[in-house]
Amino acid sequence: MNNVPQAFSEQTFQNFLNSCENFLFDCDGVVWNWPSEIPGSVEFINRVKQMGKKCFFVTNNSTRTRETFSQQLKDFGVKDITKDEILSTAWVLAEYLKSQNFNGKVYLVGNPAMVQELDRLNIKHNGLEEHKDYVFNSTNYNEIELDPTIKCVSVGIDYEFTFQKMIYASSYLKRNDCIFVATNDDSSLPVPIPNIAIPDAGPILSSIEKTTGKKALVIGKPRSTMWEILCKVHGLDATKTCMIGDRLDTDILFAFNAGIEKSVLVLSGITKESDMQNQDRKKLPMFYADSLGDLLKFI
Amino acid sequence: MNNVPQAFSEQTFQNFLNSCENFLFDCDGVVWNWPSEIPGSVEFINRVKQMGKKCFFVTNNSTRTRETFSQQLKDFGVKDITKDEILSTAWVLAEYLKSQNFNGKVYLVGNPAMVQELDRLNIKHNGLEEHKDYVFNSTNYNEIELDPTIKCVSVGIDYEFTFQKMIYASSYLKRNDCIFVATNDDSSLPVPIPNIAIPDAGPILSSIEKTTGKKALVIGKPRSTMWEILCKVHGLDATKTCMIGDRLDTDILFAFNAGIEKSVLVLSGITKESDMQNQDRKKLPMFYADSLGDLLKFI
Repeated sequence: MNNVPQAFSEQTFQNFLNSCENFLFDCDGVVWNWPSEIPGSVEFINRVKQMGKKCFFVTNNSTRTRETFSQQLKDFGVKDITKDEILSTAWVLAEYLKSQNFNGKVYLVGNPAMVQELDRLNIKHNGLEEHKDYVFNSTNYNEIELDPTIKCVSVGIDYEFTFQKMIYASSYLKRNDCIFVATNDDSSLPVPIPNIAIPDAGPILSSIEKTTGKKALVIGKPRSTMWEILCKVHGLDATKTCMIGDRLDTDILFAFNAGIEKSVLVLSGITKESDMQNQDRKKLPMFYADSLGDLLKFI
Repeated sequence: MNNVPQAFSEQTFQNFLNSCENFLFDCDGVVWNWPSEIPGSVEFINRVKQMGKKCFFVTNNSTRTRETFSQQLKDFGVKDITKDEILSTAWVLAEYLKSQNFNGKVYLVGNPAMVQELDRLNIKHNGLEEHKDYVFNSTNYNEIELDPTIKCVSVGIDYEFTFQKMIYASSYLKRNDCIFVATNDDSSLPVPIPNIAIPDAGPILSSIEKTTGKKALVIGKPRSTMWEILCKVHGLDATKTCMIGDRLDTDILFAFNAGIEKSVLVLSGITKESDMQNQDRKKLPMFYADSLGDLLKFI
């Protein structure tokens, strides 16, 4: 294997396509730059599906359920798509807890999609609605009401994150039997306006990790947890699978961590071609392309 | 100099006392475990003051003004104490901005004491009261109203910290001319109840640093900024100064960073004697004692 990422030629693309049975797509920067489709991406996906390839969508975004994601892809024109082709971190986090036979209650720093995914598996939780009126004033420790049944702190992006939630999450994590999981640790969301920064789950997570000195198990890319779940359910073969994403340090590193050798970086999202210079080889794709639409000429 | 911390004997204490003109005291875990005095600490301070030694109180706590601190020490019985003997991070942060001839507006993630210290120097600020009703909903970017005159983000402990404040602070830091300062980066506050964790400024700061990828200039211990301010105002001699604290990684490292060779660890706060084993020598004190009160027998 050559460690220098290659642009596709018609020949290399055909060989590549023939060797892949399964395609994993990141969404942001690959399928869409929300709320707009990246031109040609949906047509690329539909053509690949017509050839009988399996397509899955692997996203760190924890604010949507699998149903919402599949409906959004359908609305963009992706054909024959169901929730079973979606791996979102809110869903995988709930599935992970179930796989661990978790039977306590979760303290949730998160969002409504995470609530829905926990509810679907009958995993009890609190956090989003409780104690909203509590404001620490440097002496009112005795007004902090901890629930003795909490055995897990789960963290995802939470638009209503507060200092009070930091107190509760960090206090629960003082318990030796309290597990600590997070959907993802991305620093910020992609935003359409250059002068605005919107934190993702990473900054929320880092505040709780800093308070407690504990590290969460992170579900999302670049960790391989989502691939392991996909293998368990669909029995995929890593050697016949390709990962397509727009981020070296999440998507391409995820492929490496999952043992997926075939990876493609598209330059339609956050990464520029020059970002591949002087990179750790774990973060270098096998191939790169301007966008999915740019590959249509080879199909 | 011997690098192994020593317990005092009567002789070594007398020699030590004679060699010191200035005493710097940390407060939490040294003078008090709030709200209780650590027995003997006030008597020790008063005796040392009676001998003509200068005493200063150097604290990372940003929630009190110098006036409040000096009044609290007075209430505990410390004699002849004024705000001029107090170095608190809220005060030093404001003084730092003044020393830089800062003339923009500060976006403040902080608390009322920081407001008072900025107001005292006529430094404009906002943040604590603005935009409280704004909740990000994944599309309402255009409701984020950035103030074009903000040229600094200042971070301290903020009991009303929210996701909305993370958005504002991180967005201002996208500006190339926006400076980034913080009172301290301690992980958590000392609390009197073992099952509770209360974040200090560190976790708030880490969330903004994670979002932006930028690092703040941190005023508090272990950095030597407070010592530099003290030298500027009072012209102290490091070789005749002693730092007394209860934390190896803030107080004792602060002494090292400030070039203060004479440091004393008291075991009346967060550190146990065994914590000194296998420590970096920068974090090892010259002497240690159970508490200030325990040293009264030598005076």
